[in-house]
Amino acid sequence: MRYAAPIERLLEELERLPGIGPKSAQRLAYHILVAEAADAQRLADAVVEVKRAIHFCPRCFNFAEGELCAICADPQRDQHVICVVEEPRDLAAVERTGEFRGTYHVLQGAISPIDGIGPERLRIKELVERVGVEETTEVVIATNPNAEGETTAIYIARLRKPLGVRVTRIASGLPVGGDLEYADEVTLGRALEARREM
Amino acid sequence: MRYAAPIERLLEELERLPGIGPKSAQRLAYHILVAEAADAQRLADAVVEVKRAIHFCPRCFNFAEGELCAICADPQRDQHVICVVEEPRDLAAVERTGEFRGTYHVLQGAISPIDGIGPERLRIKELVERVGVEETTEVVIATNPNAEGETTAIYIARLRKPLGVRVTRIASGLPVGGDLEYADEVTLGRALEARREM
Repeated sequence: MRYAAPIERLLEELERLPGIGPKSAQRLAYHILVAEAADAQRLADAVVEVKRAIHFCPRCFNFAEGELCAICADPQRDQHVICVVEEPRDLAAVERTGEFRGTYHVLQGAISPIDGIGPERLRIKELVERVGVEETTEVVIATNPNAEGETTAIYIARLRKPLGVRVTRIASGLPVGGDLEYADEVTLGRALEARREM
Repeated sequence: MRYAAPIERLLEELERLPGIGPKSAQRLAYHILVAEAADAQRLADAVVEVKRAIHFCPRCFNFAEGELCAICADPQRDQHVICVVEEPRDLAAVERTGEFRGTYHVLQGAISPIDGIGPERLRIKELVERVGVEETTEVVIATNPNAEGETTAIYIARLRKPLGVRVTRIASGLPVGGDLEYADEVTLGRALEARREM
């Protein structure tokens, strides 16, 4: 059975979201259908507003509301140390440890030959440029401890000479094969502390 | 770490949705943030449009785009048999069996003393009124085969005398304790066929 067209359209849009299958989409749509109109409007507004207000920081490619992201714009942060992460949610995970006071560089992914993602698809060129221009003293690589993240870490480490700076990798100690995003603060903090030369 | 305000607002709205925890909300927000602006706008529009265009059918309380829902407005359907379900998604599950050609009555829930939901919170009064006015020959109760659904079925069956019509219950055969929504079409079709007098 098909639902009325507006419901079908909503189901279709919900099913495009990651991790949302047909059954989850039905539950979400039902929730929206029985919710107060104002609640549904707030959800829709939040989606539109986030796209209007948020762009990528031109320096580190984190999400930014102002010209630079909140971290790049913060004079308290050590501008000479760059922590390289795959995605903004990994940046958020590192921030939660409270162990890092430098800035970040968000690659917007990891090298994955299987998915056809080569280094040119990532913000690695921009990292190299940044390190060349800014007085960077250390690049801490905090990509995920899985195959793609390790490959990416090794690729960036090999650019060490042109970078001409210290390149470190957060310590193993994180469950291998897992996602950085799911690590607890203490484990991730320890891994940061024990980072080693690459 | 907190994200920029528009991201936090989106996370907050996403976390209000059923089955969406903080981690899922982050994944969804990230997807929306990196999606094309047009895709995000389509999602927002679908949410707003569904609230604008869809209301409850005043006869059966299914979702309706026109004055009546598509099923109540269909002259091909047997207007004298009413299948009582808890929610529109249960109606959709019964429709998918292709075994039922009557109309529906959506209770908008089930009796659940634990959740403080008594019969007065459901569309039972409207069902009784409908059966009194329309020339109903049979009421098929297709509430979920769990505690709340059974309680609701028994409650409606006890109104049998004032209803003065045949009241049946879809057969067991569905996994008890489960949700009608997740039954496969064949099982649910058989259960409909083998409905018994209450």
